[in-house]
Amino acid sequence: MSEPIITLLTDFGCQDGYVASMKGVILSIAPTAGLIDISHLIEPRDIRSAAFVLFTCYHFFPANTIHVAIVDPGVGTDRRAIAVRTPSCTMVGPDNGIFSLVLMREKRWEARNLDNPGLHLERVSMTFHGRDVFSPVAAHLANGTPFETLGSLCSPVCSPWIAPIEGVSGIEGEVIHIDRFGNAITNVKRETLVARAPIENWSVQVTAASNIPIEKTYGRTLPGSILALEGSSGFIEIAVNQGNAASLLGLQTSSSVGFRLSSAT
Amino acid sequence: MSEPIITLLTDFGCQDGYVASMKGVILSIAPTAGLIDISHLIEPRDIRSAAFVLFTCYHFFPANTIHVAIVDPGVGTDRRAIAVRTPSCTMVGPDNGIFSLVLMREKRWEARNLDNPGLHLERVSMTFHGRDVFSPVAAHLANGTPFETLGSLCSPVCSPWIAPIEGVSGIEGEVIHIDRFGNAITNVKRETLVARAPIENWSVQVTAASNIPIEKTYGRTLPGSILALEGSSGFIEIAVNQGNAASLLGLQTSSSVGFRLSSAT
Amino acid sequence: MSEPIITLLTDFGCQDGYVASMKGVILSIAPTAGLIDISHLIEPRDIRSAAFVLFTCYHFFPANTIHVAIVDPGVGTDRRAIAVRTPSCTMVGPDNGIFSLVLMREKRWEARNLDNPGLHLERVSMTFHGRDVFSPVAAHLANGTPFETLGSLCSPVCSPWIAPIEGVSGIEGEVIHIDRFGNAITNVKRETLVARAPIENWSVQVTAASNIPIEKTYGRTLPGSILALEGSSGFIEIAVNQGNAASLLGLQTSSSVGFRLSSAT
Repeated sequence: MSEPIITLLTDFGCQDGYVASMKGVILSIAPTAGLIDISHLIEPRDIRSAAFVLFTCYHFFPANTIHVAIVDPGVGTDRRAIAVRTPSCTMVGPDNGIFSLVLMREKRWEARNLDNPGLHLERVSMTFHGRDVFSPVAAHLANGTPFETLGSLCSPVCSPWIAPIEGVSGIEGEVIHIDRFGNAITNVKRETLVARAPIENWSVQVTAASNIPIEKTYGRTLPGSILALEGSSGFIEIAVNQGNAASLLGLQTSSSVGFRLSSAT
Repeated sequence: MSEPIITLLTDFGCQDGYVASMKGVILSIAPTAGLIDISHLIEPRDIRSAAFVLFTCYHFFPANTIHVAIVDPGVGTDRRAIAVRTPSCTMVGPDNGIFSLVLMREKRWEARNLDNPGLHLERVSMTFHGRDVFSPVAAHLANGTPFETLGSLCSPVCSPWIAPIEGVSGIEGEVIHIDRFGNAITNVKRETLVARAPIENWSVQVTAASNIPIEKTYGRTLPGSILALEGSSGFIEIAVNQGNAASLLGLQTSSSVGFRLSSAT
Repeated sequence: MSEPIITLLTDFGCQDGYVASMKGVILSIAPTAGLIDISHLIEPRDIRSAAFVLFTCYHFFPANTIHVAIVDPGVGTDRRAIAVRTPSCTMVGPDNGIFSLVLMREKRWEARNLDNPGLHLERVSMTFHGRDVFSPVAAHLANGTPFETLGSLCSPVCSPWIAPIEGVSGIEGEVIHIDRFGNAITNVKRETLVARAPIENWSVQVTAASNIPIEKTYGRTLPGSILALEGSSGFIEIAVNQGNAASLLGLQTSSSVGFRLSSAT
């Protein structure tokens, strides 16, 4: 068995010493842990986006990987700090829904409230639990500390935005992530649509545009065309061929996206 | 012998889970591989810029390093996926010229078409060969899989922009990279110029400015001055002392740059 | 003992091959060194900001860690290249004050002028000592080369901006870093203020605003409020609740910040 990997996903950015402080804490406790950055450029306070990014990549890592995910607008309040173990991974972070999408896919999990202060740094600040709580807990897990010793059993928050609302006139979804290319990823899976009607009967509607067709690839569309398609994560995303859909359509995380049934061709 | 290093160079950005997915795939196959990011901030679809960045740094790595370079506007078309082995490195990526500058310097190489699906992920998506093809191939190479088993022999694409055009009135080059400081790196080497005339007889011309002198260092110029000089990679670059040449002169990748001979001093 | 960690802190950005070249040089000399990026997004030439970021995180790393810090506007001039060893760390970089804040906290240190060319690359360029001098020196240190062999003893530059100026009308400080969230960190510590008067008697003054209160947390303020508070590094920072203080108040590194005593409540 090789040493466990610890991944880091935050909204701390790359220009300050925040992430490096976390890495220093981890390597001081678990010197041989392998550290992998998932991203530190999540939009500040955007829990949906962090949840989506974690969802897209966690299952490509070995099952003993420990994912530390911190977008934590509630730090300093009474939101819980948790760790969740599933057959595919272990996750550590604030209990604010950031693990929702992973837990929607994982069938079994066990969650612990991080209420064992012996596994935290000696002095825990009000504002930087990433360094003082989550990093040392992840490092101790990498060292083999039993999961059960982290704290008491708990049930993690599951956010409502992980699932779209199905109604008579269609399906009401929302944007959960804007990627680097300006594609707007929704919380609606292709399989949810085709369970109700053939994919070609559906179109997508946002504030700035309606009747957006769901295509199989970019190939059939002209540069500049607005289209929707299934992304590599299984969710429908709104894109502009060789353009930036989020800018063009004014989309951001939590923007409404309607999926409408038209009469069949 | 220490374990091989795998470097990653892409236009995927740092805000999404794309790069982390690749790393997860690699570490699942080759758990002890050392991963080094070259850059993920190549401008989307800018093959020249990726080729230049790889060229500037590959030769500083140990010779058994595997460089994965992915700027891949042709993903999903019939462009080939290749690996190239030289005495200095092994490279894996799309066959679109991204390795042109390295191959211009390396005298010997062997290239393989990645047509052995047994070394790819089981399900290969239409849009993300970085994760599904290039990462697993690099990981298998790191594990010692013989280069010959990757696929059939092939000849990699060599892009025309790697070499300037020599004419009667001078040398016609182009910008192949804009660096963080706004310096515009051209595809013309100092040695190409001095082979024809002393360096002080040359000047540089772009759309927005002409008679740009080629200086040895910034030292002799005033702040704000436009100058050209040999960069650390051996190519002539256009710079502004304490300023941003690309912004000031409207330069971008593939902008024309003329090198003109004036009468000697 | 596990292998030493080498951290990297620069203003080189993440889009070019500069940082990767340094890593290639290090791994060619010390193949098993663990490499950690602190940041490469320090504003170009901003020595204060680099000094601050290093200060905030270095003490979280194991004591045998080697920190390479390079913001080096004087490269190519006669500024010295140095290494400094303290009980908490070893640091390598230009002698321009970049280590000032760490040395202010560390009680004991030994500094060496990097004048032993046998530990540099064979060819040292005029402009890239990060690759040609600092990286090989750090790698040799990681390999166990004795500190004494780096070069002759010297005394490192200590910058005046590390300490505020105490006067009759208060304390005159300045901004030494702007973080990702737009918080403006000053060079004034809370302990400096309370040594002179209770914290509630102090207020903060910048060009665009005065009478900024020093609060304990964001909790008591309304969104949009301008406040000052002690940051996780012990320095007073100017913030806007859910906003960007640097943008709102026009603050940048080296902006003046006055600390004023008001009559007690």
